[in-house]
Amino acid sequence: MKVSIERSALLKAMSRAQSVVERRNTIPILANVLIEAEGDTLAFRATDLDIEVVDRAPAMVIRAGATTVGAHTLHEIVRKLPEGAMVELEADSAAGRLSVRAGRSSFSLATLPREDFPVMASAEYECNFACAAPILRRLFDKAKFAISTEETRYYLNGVYMHSADGPDGRVLRCVATDGHRLARIDADLPQGADNLPGVIVPRKTVGELRKLLDDDDLQIAVSVSETKVRFATPEVTLTSKVIDGSFPDYSRVIPVHNSKRLEVDATEFSRAVDRVATVSSERSRAVKLTLEDDRLILSVNAPDSGAAEEELAVAYADEPLEIGFNAKYLQEIADQVDRENAVFLFNSPGDPTLMREGNDETAVYVVMPMRV
Amino acid sequence: MKVSIERSALLKAMSRAQSVVERRNTIPILANVLIEAEGDTLAFRATDLDIEVVDRAPAMVIRAGATTVGAHTLHEIVRKLPEGAMVELEADSAAGRLSVRAGRSSFSLATLPREDFPVMASAEYECNFACAAPILRRLFDKAKFAISTEETRYYLNGVYMHSADGPDGRVLRCVATDGHRLARIDADLPQGADNLPGVIVPRKTVGELRKLLDDDDLQIAVSVSETKVRFATPEVTLTSKVIDGSFPDYSRVIPVHNSKRLEVDATEFSRAVDRVATVSSERSRAVKLTLEDDRLILSVNAPDSGAAEEELAVAYADEPLEIGFNAKYLQEIADQVDRENAVFLFNSPGDPTLMREGNDETAVYVVMPMRV
Repeated sequence: MKVSIERSALLKAMSRAQSVVERRNTIPILANVLIEAEGDTLAFRATDLDIEVVDRAPAMVIRAGATTVGAHTLHEIVRKLPEGAMVELEADSAAGRLSVRAGRSSFSLATLPREDFPVMASAEYECNFACAAPILRRLFDKAKFAISTEETRYYLNGVYMHSADGPDGRVLRCVATDGHRLARIDADLPQGADNLPGVIVPRKTVGELRKLLDDDDLQIAVSVSETKVRFATPEVTLTSKVIDGSFPDYSRVIPVHNSKRLEVDATEFSRAVDRVATVSSERSRAVKLTLEDDRLILSVNAPDSGAAEEELAVAYADEPLEIGFNAKYLQEIADQVDRENAVFLFNSPGDPTLMREGNDETAVYVVMPMRV
Repeated sequence: MKVSIERSALLKAMSRAQSVVERRNTIPILANVLIEAEGDTLAFRATDLDIEVVDRAPAMVIRAGATTVGAHTLHEIVRKLPEGAMVELEADSAAGRLSVRAGRSSFSLATLPREDFPVMASAEYECNFACAAPILRRLFDKAKFAISTEETRYYLNGVYMHSADGPDGRVLRCVATDGHRLARIDADLPQGADNLPGVIVPRKTVGELRKLLDDDDLQIAVSVSETKVRFATPEVTLTSKVIDGSFPDYSRVIPVHNSKRLEVDATEFSRAVDRVATVSSERSRAVKLTLEDDRLILSVNAPDSGAAEEELAVAYADEPLEIGFNAKYLQEIADQVDRENAVFLFNSPGDPTLMREGNDETAVYVVMPMRV
């Protein structure tokens, strides 16, 4: 293999590759990226055995071939090369070396044979559809804060992507929950997604997927099977195992009869919660909401360190209510609101509370109260 | 005590105070800041028993008095208040509370009596002088990278500030070393500093001092005794114990007969060292310099991961030389150069190497070689 490639294209591909590669590996070749040169393209393949990413970049291929080399080292080298440099990669498989040359710099890196690189088995995808990048971005961005980090409840360590019956027809739906709060985000069901099997997309995959979704004009090709999910752009293919478990029946958790309605500026609300929570000890950051006649009082009482109170002008016309929440959870759901006011629907101080943006039912959040 | 103060002035003072206050304290009052209101000034005093900082800010004092309150909590609260807010502080010493009010937010924080706050004993300073901020900044900024972090050699855990005979008369000198490298920075001796006792200014004090030195037009009042050092601006007084130990005789370490002269662009050199060091394992980041006829080859050979080489055009007219260094040490001294080329003076591959900026002898660095 011998190729010449522009530094910025190489850096982009290597950034993606090294972010999938784990820092610590018991299997040496998992620290490597597989580089394949053919035609006028270099393909960079990296995996942690659960996720595989393949990135293609245009290059001048002088001699086709392939090799594998330490992903983090190559990424660091490319990052430190001067902008605009042309980089030459030449593999010497007999010596087990890849030479990297740019300007007056030259590097010789240890390689491992391409044959040893674990390529993820291809799957039969039973469902294939296309989805615009901004739609997928919204579905995952608004849900991911609620992903559980508790390893024992592994089936909550991801975003549950499936199709469902929405209020106005079938929807593509993403749900995440950690038992304390829940996010349910809907989009119109794309053509071809009718037979979508419900899959739990792991947290790390959600993070890697996010990097493909910055370009508003991009269509993402989504393929789903019972065990795998694939997201592809013209340059990048991200394949991931899905979490092998059943996502709980979340619909029972979403309250439908909550009728006490609070409408509040989401940013002001989030900042006020943040401020009053300052005085509480880190473990139990409970904040109390006292509601009465278009007035919301947020208060925190931490016996050892102090107390805090803040009043907000809001829209609230129901009977007086006192209810407590974990401050961090409240803030995180309020921070999801990006267009309209936050609308909270309460029942009793012991029941789950629902939040949405204005009257939009395509993004619904649930948060469990806390005794205060 | 009852006062009203602009949020930005309060935030500035509290930022300084909380940076001196340690995050973990066995003595509760050390977590607090002492706030004293008198005339039209609020004074904020914070200490870790080794360093004391007093910051004065203009305020409207409605009722003079003093109290102490948790520094980190108050700082967090002020930081989260909206810009431009007026903040009212009112102490209720009977209840042991400080109330903090701004707009519709109100906080009540636990206080401890001002009498319990440890105020650093004032000292007899035998030497008092004034020094322009940029001069002090240069003295400490260029020396501090070489401060040792080894706690057993506690007398190297700071910058040794003293007066000395320089090539052109008496100088104010700062020296730091960790045994592997050394920095010696000189400035003209300020008036009144003739009888300066040599003191070792601790690392944390150097960090706090740095925050006082951003204003180029400021004169800093420096006071020094055998046990303490004080730096004062019109707003801030920073007092610190000095390290109780003898700084070693560094002059013997500075080579005077090194004659092999290399001149190189410092930025290019530092970047090239950084690049070639990428391939080496983290522990022994050794880089080899091979010098011959206006050519410098930087090379690294790491058996397990690979090799790297880079050539630089330099000025070098002496006999060929091969010498090795810790890559990080080389980079750090090269990064001190801000005006001219870096000039290295070598002797043999086993002897300490000297570096300076051009022919400027007021900033001199020594680095020990490493076998490669």
